[in-house]
Amino acid sequence: MPAETTMWKVLLAYDGSEYYGWQVQPDRQTVQGELRDALARITGEDVLPQGSGRTDAGVHALGQVASFPLAAPVPEANLARALNRTLPASIRVLSATRVASDFHARHSAQSKTYEYRIFRGELCPPWQARYVYAYNAPLDIAAMQRAATQVVGEHNFTSFAASDGDPDPPGNQRCLYASDWTQEGNLLIYRVRGNGFLHHMVRNLVGTFLEVGRENIDASEIRSILESRSRARAGPTAPARGLFLVSVEYPAELTKK
Amino acid sequence: MPAETTMWKVLLAYDGSEYYGWQVQPDRQTVQGELRDALARITGEDVLPQGSGRTDAGVHALGQVASFPLAAPVPEANLARALNRTLPASIRVLSATRVASDFHARHSAQSKTYEYRIFRGELCPPWQARYVYAYNAPLDIAAMQRAATQVVGEHNFTSFAASDGDPDPPGNQRCLYASDWTQEGNLLIYRVRGNGFLHHMVRNLVGTFLEVGRENIDASEIRSILESRSRARAGPTAPARGLFLVSVEYPAELTKK
Repeated sequence: MPAETTMWKVLLAYDGSEYYGWQVQPDRQTVQGELRDALARITGEDVLPQGSGRTDAGVHALGQVASFPLAAPVPEANLARALNRTLPASIRVLSATRVASDFHARHSAQSKTYEYRIFRGELCPPWQARYVYAYNAPLDIAAMQRAATQVVGEHNFTSFAASDGDPDPPGNQRCLYASDWTQEGNLLIYRVRGNGFLHHMVRNLVGTFLEVGRENIDASEIRSILESRSRARAGPTAPARGLFLVSVEYPAELTKK
Repeated sequence: MPAETTMWKVLLAYDGSEYYGWQVQPDRQTVQGELRDALARITGEDVLPQGSGRTDAGVHALGQVASFPLAAPVPEANLARALNRTLPASIRVLSATRVASDFHARHSAQSKTYEYRIFRGELCPPWQARYVYAYNAPLDIAAMQRAATQVVGEHNFTSFAASDGDPDPPGNQRCLYASDWTQEGNLLIYRVRGNGFLHHMVRNLVGTFLEVGRENIDASEIRSILESRSRARAGPTAPARGLFLVSVEYPAELTKK
């Protein structure tokens, strides 16, 4: 990075239903592509913002983080405002701050929190349908919680990784710090925090916990599913629309300029 | 209607952003078309449901009403359930009831209520953007309310009708029973109830009241704008996405079987 540039960290919320995921793809609308285009229109600079990680098509973010260097000397308040004027309404910049020059949205991340929302009412309002998985059949939620607690800690999550993912099992070791189901009104929410997540991992965990809730898998089997390192042993992938990237945590010293 | 058919009234909620409005159009997704197709799939009958009125592309409904005759002897609870299984998640049937054979969703309607939602916060969350008009500049809301009260009663609303609408001024007489602005958290909401509405009428009233709020039109001018019968005197058409058809009222005797 040339000496005269400043590293920026932006906090983003977006409706993933309108995008082919985070990562730029030729001839597809993506969140990263929209952000790059908005930065180019505002500053004339051609930078590719680095996200804390990819989100798939249809997955939403309450607090995705992206970083990029800019040469233009933009005041902090102005950059967020200018981006929000330029970006589509389905992507909002919650904040834009200058950070340490070695900050990197992905490499510097310490942990991430995801939330998966299941709508449990009989009639899901049309304005909620894109942001929840509507599932109203009976579920043993206590069993789902027992299953969820078993994935806390350091494990090899190959059984819960997309089959198109890294086939190297030692690389699939991740540590989960929290994994819980809570009921909030009509929503049944799974919240998980960990030091990293494999492709489809949260959706595969949710799909498996739903099988536990339906009594097709016993909560006590979760450990043996983990140990089997076999995607075939776990449940199906839950739909993208219920998943939100809630927040990404960084060391305090890197997020101050 | 053959003697053996039953007249049905369905109450619908929908997200208008995904449709080219209510009314069927060739090669376009419309709410009426989706409902007709769902009824055909369920009953094998080819009926075109009659709506209480058209809603434009992007306009939503909390309580649109449609009526249609069916020969199939479907139990009430089953029809709503079958429709909700068949329709896309952006259209929900809140209820389906058998009604008097001379019930007609449009002809029998006594009054309708619409709501227009303006988001007044600095950052409109992406999941609300399709359901509000985000407008955060200063507005004189007391003046907007003074303007809104002036359209209550029987008036010729030609000044507030789409220029593509009925050019016959006597046909543009309507009676409004209520017309009010209220603030509810981050939302500034205009609610209007009347015996009928011309094409674009609510959106043109809102666009005009916003000009009053911006101090480009004085609240006292509303009467002379009405009397001028000139679309050019009123304000612009507010965006479709903030508008909801809230409810349609009918004589009690027609909505009982």
